[in-house]
Amino acid sequence: MSHVAKGKIYLLPSTLGGETTTDIIPPDVASIAIQLRCFAVEDIKSARRYLRKLDREFPIDDSTFFILNKKTPIDELQKMLKPVLNGQDLAIISEAGCPGIADPGAELVALAHENEIHVTPLVGPSSILLALIGSGFSGQSFTFHGYLPKERKERIKKMKDFEGDARRNDRTHIFMDTPFRNMNVLEDLLNELADQTKLCIAHNLTNPNASVRTYTVKDWREKAFDLEKYPTMFLIGISQNK
Amino acid sequence: MSHVAKGKIYLLPSTLGGETTTDIIPPDVASIAIQLRCFAVEDIKSARRYLRKLDREFPIDDSTFFILNKKTPIDELQKMLKPVLNGQDLAIISEAGCPGIADPGAELVALAHENEIHVTPLVGPSSILLALIGSGFSGQSFTFHGYLPKERKERIKKMKDFEGDARRNDRTHIFMDTPFRNMNVLEDLLNELADQTKLCIAHNLTNPNASVRTYTVKDWREKAFDLEKYPTMFLIGISQNK
Repeated sequence: MSHVAKGKIYLLPSTLGGETTTDIIPPDVASIAIQLRCFAVEDIKSARRYLRKLDREFPIDDSTFFILNKKTPIDELQKMLKPVLNGQDLAIISEAGCPGIADPGAELVALAHENEIHVTPLVGPSSILLALIGSGFSGQSFTFHGYLPKERKERIKKMKDFEGDARRNDRTHIFMDTPFRNMNVLEDLLNELADQTKLCIAHNLTNPNASVRTYTVKDWREKAFDLEKYPTMFLIGISQNK
Repeated sequence: MSHVAKGKIYLLPSTLGGETTTDIIPPDVASIAIQLRCFAVEDIKSARRYLRKLDREFPIDDSTFFILNKKTPIDELQKMLKPVLNGQDLAIISEAGCPGIADPGAELVALAHENEIHVTPLVGPSSILLALIGSGFSGQSFTFHGYLPKERKERIKKMKDFEGDARRNDRTHIFMDTPFRNMNVLEDLLNELADQTKLCIAHNLTNPNASVRTYTVKDWREKAFDLEKYPTMFLIGISQNK
């Protein structure tokens, strides 16, 4: 049996909803992406659309697309690694932002490491990081919590835990929810947190109407606006100016 | 008094040590950066070098550079905001990666929010995020801890706390240390953590010799190599393949 060099797995970020890619993808990342012909993606249609944004001539029909979602069984993942073990490169593309943050990409990456496959994360947009640096809160120590619990009592308990920990440890807490629950989350934050607690709301990051704003809870009560439709990050932290 | 529209504050990421910018900065971000003439930077020399990488013709001599570091007093920060309040845009550039993560940029951002100045985080490289997505660990919930305590006993206590929390809550823990302590950290990790705990070591991210590898502590003991000179992220987590 001949010895074949293994392919690599690239983690290819995608847009956070914007129409162009030149605002979120470095040229060298785009160059790598458009040379690949094997992809693991959540949604084939939007992955194809994204590749065509990177290169209008991208040869969709010469490419292989594996569907990678929460329901993908382990033996399907193993199947995706087969071409890679045989020397072909593969990219994991998420639906929005960085693969592996809030999508099933991490499972395939974990399996890749077990198979001694080289994993290369590529630079691209992360709404978590953009919100964090835009907040003015501590970046020396922060926790991303993903989605809040759906149940209101539990959600409020979490928020208060974050508030207490931010104050005690100068740690920034980042969380989100599905857009249709944004206003419920905001309402709970404004009702339950202390007047002087700082809250940052970041939405539509990397889009033309992006906004990152940090105020005290007290000030937010007068400014609160409609978040309903927008992908939003909420951050509780300590402003870094003393 | 005439009413002047305020300028914006951009958060401009920089290279993680690489020689080029086309692998880490999207074209639109570079376009914004090279039109600016007012900067808050940690080190003027390296900021100038970076701007010249983005545009060989960048008019350094027509630009204003404020020094922004840990020692910068609050009234200096206020001075930096003056041109912005008068309509000029300003960019905060960090020494490596995203401003405001492990540098004093966050203080200026906090002050900007208090002055109702629009803050725009720009897409660029973050070794924290790249290490996280490359690890195969959970990205649904993760904590970045910055630098570990210098004192060995405290450092070991932290590591064990991370290990316990990762196991209980499927939360990924990310931390770093100054390069000259990397080998001490690695030694402690391999001596103190359980055989089956998963450890990811990511170094030189975005550079040609970048590496992200995840093994059990047991396997790392046989693979451990010299990290001394490299900027390194350590991650403790649960591999996402079940």
